[in-house]
Amino acid sequence: MFLVKLYGNVVPYVKPPNLTLVKYEEIEEKSMNYHTFDPLNTNTISPILTCLTDIYKRYQPINEGNVATYIPELAKANPDLFGICITTPDGQIYQVGESQHSFTIQSISKPFVYGLALGDHGVEKIMSKVGVEPTGEAFNSIVFDEENNRPYNPMVNAGAIATTALIKGEGYEQRFNRILSMFEGFAGRSLTVDEAVFESERSTGHRNRAIAYLELNAGMLEGNLEEHLDLYFRQCSILVTAKDLAVMAATLANNGINPITQQQAVNPEEVRAILSVMASCGMYDFSGEWLYRIGLPAKSGVGGGIIAVLPGQFGIGTFSPLLDPRGNSVRGIKVCEELSQRFKFHLFDSHPVSQTCVSRTYTGAMVSSRRQRRAFQRDFLDQAGEKILVYELKGDLYFATLEKLTRQLQSNQQTAKFIVLDGRRVGNVNSSAITLLSEIKQWCLSQEITLMLTGFEPKTTVRLKANGWTDEGFVDNIDTALEWCENCLLAEQDYQDITVKDQLSLEEMDIFKAFTAEEMTAIAPLFSEVSYQPKDFIIREGEKSDRLFLLAKGMTTVSLQLSQTEQRKRLTTYIPGIAFGELALFDINVSQRTADIVADTEVICYVLEFDRLKTLLKTKPEVYIKLLQTFGKTLVNTIKRATLEIRSLSV
Amino acid sequence: MFLVKLYGNVVPYVKPPNLTLVKYEEIEEKSMNYHTFDPLNTNTISPILTCLTDIYKRYQPINEGNVATYIPELAKANPDLFGICITTPDGQIYQVGESQHSFTIQSISKPFVYGLALGDHGVEKIMSKVGVEPTGEAFNSIVFDEENNRPYNPMVNAGAIATTALIKGEGYEQRFNRILSMFEGFAGRSLTVDEAVFESERSTGHRNRAIAYLELNAGMLEGNLEEHLDLYFRQCSILVTAKDLAVMAATLANNGINPITQQQAVNPEEVRAILSVMASCGMYDFSGEWLYRIGLPAKSGVGGGIIAVLPGQFGIGTFSPLLDPRGNSVRGIKVCEELSQRFKFHLFDSHPVSQTCVSRTYTGAMVSSRRQRRAFQRDFLDQAGEKILVYELKGDLYFATLEKLTRQLQSNQQTAKFIVLDGRRVGNVNSSAITLLSEIKQWCLSQEITLMLTGFEPKTTVRLKANGWTDEGFVDNIDTALEWCENCLLAEQDYQDITVKDQLSLEEMDIFKAFTAEEMTAIAPLFSEVSYQPKDFIIREGEKSDRLFLLAKGMTTVSLQLSQTEQRKRLTTYIPGIAFGELALFDINVSQRTADIVADTEVICYVLEFDRLKTLLKTKPEVYIKLLQTFGKTLVNTIKRATLEIRSLSV
Repeated sequence: MFLVKLYGNVVPYVKPPNLTLVKYEEIEEKSMNYHTFDPLNTNTISPILTCLTDIYKRYQPINEGNVATYIPELAKANPDLFGICITTPDGQIYQVGESQHSFTIQSISKPFVYGLALGDHGVEKIMSKVGVEPTGEAFNSIVFDEENNRPYNPMVNAGAIATTALIKGEGYEQRFNRILSMFEGFAGRSLTVDEAVFESERSTGHRNRAIAYLELNAGMLEGNLEEHLDLYFRQCSILVTAKDLAVMAATLANNGINPITQQQAVNPEEVRAILSVMASCGMYDFSGEWLYRIGLPAKSGVGGGIIAVLPGQFGIGTFSPLLDPRGNSVRGIKVCEELSQRFKFHLFDSHPVSQTCVSRTYTGAMVSSRRQRRAFQRDFLDQAGEKILVYELKGDLYFATLEKLTRQLQSNQQTAKFIVLDGRRVGNVNSSAITLLSEIKQWCLSQEITLMLTGFEPKTTVRLKANGWTDEGFVDNIDTALEWCENCLLAEQDYQDITVKDQLSLEEMDIFKAFTAEEMTAIAPLFSEVSYQPKDFIIREGEKSDRLFLLAKGMTTVSLQLSQTEQRKRLTTYIPGIAFGELALFDINVSQRTADIVADTEVICYVLEFDRLKTLLKTKPEVYIKLLQTFGKTLVNTIKRATLEIRSLSV
Repeated sequence: MFLVKLYGNVVPYVKPPNLTLVKYEEIEEKSMNYHTFDPLNTNTISPILTCLTDIYKRYQPINEGNVATYIPELAKANPDLFGICITTPDGQIYQVGESQHSFTIQSISKPFVYGLALGDHGVEKIMSKVGVEPTGEAFNSIVFDEENNRPYNPMVNAGAIATTALIKGEGYEQRFNRILSMFEGFAGRSLTVDEAVFESERSTGHRNRAIAYLELNAGMLEGNLEEHLDLYFRQCSILVTAKDLAVMAATLANNGINPITQQQAVNPEEVRAILSVMASCGMYDFSGEWLYRIGLPAKSGVGGGIIAVLPGQFGIGTFSPLLDPRGNSVRGIKVCEELSQRFKFHLFDSHPVSQTCVSRTYTGAMVSSRRQRRAFQRDFLDQAGEKILVYELKGDLYFATLEKLTRQLQSNQQTAKFIVLDGRRVGNVNSSAITLLSEIKQWCLSQEITLMLTGFEPKTTVRLKANGWTDEGFVDNIDTALEWCENCLLAEQDYQDITVKDQLSLEEMDIFKAFTAEEMTAIAPLFSEVSYQPKDFIIREGEKSDRLFLLAKGMTTVSLQLSQTEQRKRLTTYIPGIAFGELALFDINVSQRTADIVADTEVICYVLEFDRLKTLLKTKPEVYIKLLQTFGKTLVNTIKRATLEIRSLSV
């Protein structure tokens, strides 16, 4: 009261008008994914809920501290109440105790309103009005950053009042609706105000009124002071639960997207700013020790709540009205300290030293695409394939893991012409990795190396494209990538496929290489020549297997229709000179085709219907045996290749 | 001087004795992995060095700020000097500019000496003597935490002097040697003191002397004050380079292990504490804004140095003597800000929202071990295998990714009897993950589920064992795990193998199921019965393939000698009733054996030497053909199984 009298420009105390609030659409409770503690039902207990229950039981009996008394309404709080809730970015909620009991948010409102102010004015404007330096002083201290004529930070009352004063809007009602809507966006449900607490704060908040007038006097604050103060008192009187706090914290952990509603509650840039001030100034004059002992950005309120955030991972909300002398919830601090120690959540504790992200490297000489090649092409690629380098990545990608990749790339820069990064085994990809991948792309460009990515998640692709990548940088799968690189190498040497050339004769087929003219005379009549148009099905999955094919002209592709999708998976592409459908030779009239074979071009095949072999058995059994052995040998080779591939895949 | 006169207990000013320092073993410069900027040689430029060079060139021309003048010697610094260095935990050094120029460490010594004091006395003792709360005041401010009668934090001069006063040792020389050795452990090389700066600090550091006497007066400090001050002035006068700072910072990033020497310079618990005080108080009264804008634990010194740390990833060291009014290097701040923004290094910026760590799940009914089973066993396992759940994990493991795994485990807890976690594709595993894996183990125990881990890195296994895991929790590979689970399921039903039972007859062999008695009469004489003792080689890799084997009794194992190791890789185990070595049938007298087959027990085989088939061709060609077709069909089945396996592995 002294200060109010001392400084001028007093606005008369008026009751605020009755508010008609814009209500946030109620989220159906039943749509949430609850994990509520039920000690009788051990079947539903998860490892994490078991931990929370254990911690809850251990700290429930602790009765240290006192409920807040500086506002008469807060002094009525029940000291036995205790609730804990953890929420993940995908909306999993673990809660124990009185996690659904309502209480006033108080100072926990400060970082969120700070985020709203940042959205209204931008960082530089807000920084000129409210600093971000911790003070080591109590939350209600009357100290200012005199050098810059601003409160030290938005977490002390002086800074919070100055922040609320900056919230845009036409008049009290619209401005408060903006604040409430913001909170509702974070909580994912409609919220109300405890009018009794509001009136109590409003009529007894003399010290805050004093601070505000000092700020007005110093020019740190503009506009209608009493309206600003009413807004501030009212934002502090919003009712929340520990579960709400956990959802709000999880929204911060989730780059500003509410995990329940999936709505963006705040921009990611503001999330970073909010977490930064929580980390440096969130726990009053315990902030340094909190960061030291618990190591998570956090904020407490004298209503008994605490929020803590592990970015990307989860939000914690606790509620217990017993406070220590600094105004922080006693049980809340103990819960957070225990969780941080048990699970090593401390920001500077949970970072393992990064390992390489390269799980395997191979060249195009060691692994080739599934496209069949003629012998002269194969021989060339066995050498030239060294220029194709594939890096199979694993683990999470961030600066330090990709930095190790850059060193491997450098050591291979003399030989590499194509670099393929296979991202199928990659976990999370952070923003540093996106930047560094783009730097790697630039570097490849300068070294005349073609860089291709395959197997990365679509959202990673989207982020890279937002960073200047074009479609050419991405390939559907590793097989397509290898084939494309091989084709480039072959084209350089004018070693392309000969698919448009003349039809091969029966004798030119690979399978008949070791057959004599006499043997061919016995075999030739068994085959008939058949032509196909592009896109014709030569073999259909599920058909009876009663013939085999020798490809004389054109190309055919083996593919599978993937279940429940429109996609086809290419298994291999055949070129003239080779046989297909020959597995059936060993299982005549029993087996079914296991894939589709479709003509890619105009195709001519020599077809052997197995029925015709009966005559061969009678006339030339030794030729029949040679035929079986020759085809059997190709099976053996297939098995050997498959064994090698399985072995390399199983590394 | 005023304060020195005002407060009693003055120790006369004496020149310290000549020191005979314990020298840190010199590390050969040539053993380091340098990346030094050479603008003429574009071939050696990596993507990261390109960035650093770009940043160096951009900020070199900036001449804002002034060199420190409060000590005459510091005022002599060359304002043009500018060096940047980044060092990774595995010792990669990227440096540009004057990164090898020596300057005095000054206040950057504070967090390291704080770590030494923590090692000497433990956290609680040190906390009682020096707080960890930021003050928002300048580095040389004379303010104390009066409530706790201690300086606010170890980063302001008052706290740093009190910290140095706590360093153990007998007398000045021994105490300073301990401090210097500690720094040498961090830098990975021997260091020296700039005696001129030391004398200058000592003879003109009146304000620090005043602070120390105030602390002595208040009982915050004990012992020989002038000795403490000499130690403090001398620790500030140690000469370092930007490269040294980067290595020291990288040691902090590397859990206290020096990346060059691989020696533990400080305990991991102290690293957490050091980083925490750097984060909250490291940049003087710019600490809050630094955390807000750059978001890395850091420390600056008036000698022009700055260190910054991204835990687990790297350390930065910068040097440029031009300081802003707060005493922080102007170019250094700009470099760190640019790096942080470009690569999103901010602690609250670089965390992607965690995804699941489960890349694939399958049951023992979908994938079986490589151990051959009889038909009745196979039929049983086709159903009962549902109880074996395999989770293939990928990405980094930490709390949030494993939390998602716990949910999947929970949803399968009704059916699972065995859970296998396959860690082959996993990247980093942090401490939270170690804790949560142990919680998952406890939970499995309570659900009567056997939990097995396979494919994790040895160091992860070591950490889990330190956390109470026993050898039974780990299996060599996924195949052994599957076989073990299958054996458990079979044992429950008394469906074990029948290897000790009677010898099977030739007619009982699987391959002859469809052969008539008449056909068997033609075939039987071709086979001879051969016995083997345990560990006998039945087939050796590289041998000529001239016969096939039918296993009548006992078990045999196919394995490969892995190159350059003593290890054998088991491919499969055969049981009675099946054939092996049969691939050679289609490539008589040409091919070589590709693996070893060894008798596990006493073994009896029916052996067919291919030479004997010549008579069959003459007498019963249709039986020969049937034999080829039957064996060919087993090859086709092998190919089909291999194709399925390749498909599942390639997901």
